[in-house]
Amino acid sequence: MTRKAIVLLSGGLDSTTTLAIAKSKGFQVFTLSFEYGQRHRVELDRAREISRRSGAAEHRVLTVDLGALGGSALTAGIPVPTGRSAEEMSAEIPVTYVPARNTIFLSFALAYAEVSGARDLFIGVNAVDYSGYPDCRPEYIAAFEKLANLATKAGVEGGDPIRIHTPLIDLTKAEIIQLGLSLGVDYGLTHSCYAPDEQGLACGVCDSCQLRLKGFREAGATDPVAYQPAG
Amino acid sequence: MTRKAIVLLSGGLDSTTTLAIAKSKGFQVFTLSFEYGQRHRVELDRAREISRRSGAAEHRVLTVDLGALGGSALTAGIPVPTGRSAEEMSAEIPVTYVPARNTIFLSFALAYAEVSGARDLFIGVNAVDYSGYPDCRPEYIAAFEKLANLATKAGVEGGDPIRIHTPLIDLTKAEIIQLGLSLGVDYGLTHSCYAPDEQGLACGVCDSCQLRLKGFREAGATDPVAYQPAG
Repeated sequence: MTRKAIVLLSGGLDSTTTLAIAKSKGFQVFTLSFEYGQRHRVELDRAREISRRSGAAEHRVLTVDLGALGGSALTAGIPVPTGRSAEEMSAEIPVTYVPARNTIFLSFALAYAEVSGARDLFIGVNAVDYSGYPDCRPEYIAAFEKLANLATKAGVEGGDPIRIHTPLIDLTKAEIIQLGLSLGVDYGLTHSCYAPDEQGLACGVCDSCQLRLKGFREAGATDPVAYQPAG
Repeated sequence: MTRKAIVLLSGGLDSTTTLAIAKSKGFQVFTLSFEYGQRHRVELDRAREISRRSGAAEHRVLTVDLGALGGSALTAGIPVPTGRSAEEMSAEIPVTYVPARNTIFLSFALAYAEVSGARDLFIGVNAVDYSGYPDCRPEYIAAFEKLANLATKAGVEGGDPIRIHTPLIDLTKAEIIQLGLSLGVDYGLTHSCYAPDEQGLACGVCDSCQLRLKGFREAGATDPVAYQPAG
């Protein structure tokens, strides 16, 4: 029987690569995206399209009220930083950090796993480029996996344990891109920018765009997405 | 300086008692309720009123899409069981179990703690009367506390650790009621019923009503809420 997996899919480069990895391992995938008060919706549109093209069994979008709690440049009115070096970015917890976001997202993925009969959860966290995010570290993921097996019917009734897969956690952005390209990922569908324009075009200068462009350079590849004309 | 605490408040007997305990310990309380596709809204109205009367610093209601994931009689179309004994209730995981619910709720409480500067979270879980719920066990709570300290800025930057308080976890329903009465809780404001009528009157026969009524009997007290006339 084909094993089912929940894949957290933002529509970005990392989660799209993670989806391709889950598919390549033979999982029947159920993709889960969140509407969480992001300042732009292009990500969600991309996630839906990426899921559809991947042949996912199901794609769900859950609305969560992260914006109501505030506390991050991604959901509140704090300016998104631009033009910083990778070293500057990793020196501190970025303002784009959303409090407890991965914990919230993984909790919903766990609920989805329980109702769909999946025991495997895939999340594209990365401890290299996003070292400033506490909830991207391997010890955090291990703690969530332990929690998941205590939290659910599966944990009480025995059977297959819940596993949290983080196939990108130790990879550089360039390595992620190389892996994705080898699996046939169309990065032209993915969206990474924190501050796209009205047409959804990436800015090219926010932390996320810079990490992405540096990744493509180091991978010896060309980023297929269109960027805003330099202003 | 007064310490801040997040209190998960459903408007039921247990969470209302938990709120009184947090207040009695001197915390400045921030109450958090969820609109999660419950079949009845009376709980949320009661939670707001209970929070207001407690003098909470703030009350927030977050909408979460648990209903979209299905899987429980509390959010889906599964009939709520009635007329069961306490032994029958605790023999298995009840159909009213919502997958990963406490994990989701605690995750949002953690986010709220992070943005409000609280380090203490109170949740009225109980391992005695709700032994069938995997996410009401002490080992589950311990795992969440560990996760919380790995998930957040507080965990990375040091300082006070996050603590999850479960003051009811080892108490019987009768003991909870006795404790609450000693702290001046007005149980007439609380709502426990899974299947209230249009006026919000409790049914008196669902698992939750039965546990509540048994608790009042054993506490030697009278439940001040009104019940539907026996049908």
